[in-house]
Amino acid sequence: MGRWEPNARGRLGRAALELYVERGFDQTTVADIAERAGLTKRTFFRHYVDKRDVLFAGAVPLREAVVRAVAEAPAGLSAVGAVTLGLEAAAEMIQERPEDVRLRQTVIDAHLELQERELVKLATLAGEIAAALRGRGFDACRARLIAETGMAVFRVAFARWIANSAQGLLTQVVKESMAELAAIFAED
Amino acid sequence: MGRWEPNARGRLGRAALELYVERGFDQTTVADIAERAGLTKRTFFRHYVDKRDVLFAGAVPLREAVVRAVAEAPAGLSAVGAVTLGLEAAAEMIQERPEDVRLRQTVIDAHLELQERELVKLATLAGEIAAALRGRGFDACRARLIAETGMAVFRVAFARWIANSAQGLLTQVVKESMAELAAIFAED
Repeated sequence: MGRWEPNARGRLGRAALELYVERGFDQTTVADIAERAGLTKRTFFRHYVDKRDVLFAGAVPLREAVVRAVAEAPAGLSAVGAVTLGLEAAAEMIQERPEDVRLRQTVIDAHLELQERELVKLATLAGEIAAALRGRGFDACRARLIAETGMAVFRVAFARWIANSAQGLLTQVVKESMAELAAIFAED
Repeated sequence: MGRWEPNARGRLGRAALELYVERGFDQTTVADIAERAGLTKRTFFRHYVDKRDVLFAGAVPLREAVVRAVAEAPAGLSAVGAVTLGLEAAAEMIQERPEDVRLRQTVIDAHLELQERELVKLATLAGEIAAALRGRGFDACRARLIAETGMAVFRVAFARWIANSAQGLLTQVVKESMAELAAIFAED
């Protein structure tokens, strides 16, 4: 007990996602997850606060990557350009583990409370992108408009990617969706 | 008891909003609301399911107005044009009672669970706008992209209007915000 387990976090995460899909989130216990992963409850709690944390712990590094990409975008890049770089940074992290992401989305889609939490997370991310744009000198009103629009495009791109069995590159779908929106406004 | 009370629904709604702001949503009871409005609890329950319903009952007619405006937009109008008409229909309803709307937003901003519910409501509305666009013959992918973008613009416009003490016409702020986003993409 307490010894180092190779990739314990990843194994616990995958075991949890599989069980949430098979039995439902509410019907799964931390003991079930540890057992499925061949680990102990104690090891689980070294990696996650609770069973919900398995689904949302990824939000923090994702947010940091997005905000960093927006802040560090080349000087002189437009606000839309900087936001697109930020969203591509998020997409890059997400597409690294497509199967986990697909399972996670199945769990969330089946559970209203988890959907609510996910929506709050996305709204928070939009607020942080807006702050990063203000840091680049854009005024607050414009920053918010572009950040919220960017998040709308991202949500749509993500849904398209998931609907296509999370195949191909999400970064590409994000770029295409942003270009499609630009074309829609150009035609309008 | 049971007799007809002039504008009971409006009086109860306003009393509830005032109390939610003064005491907090959780600290307010239906009895408090009825007392403040000079009505009975029984009258309250003839108009609202519970104290949360005071905040969210408006969503149904709003949604109906938006969907109807999108569906009945002039034939040949672009998807962005149809969505803009839908959002203007929502704005028209909202700007009729600016003080209630401002109080309501103060209550929601102070309460995480109410924010979650509000985000779900807005996400549902985006889905219904997308469905209305599909009904106009737009493909599902494009419909969702434009509906989500429209909702992003609407949220930003609403926040701007509220930040400006809910003065002026929200319909105008919606139109301007949509035009601003189009201009941003045109410059990009």
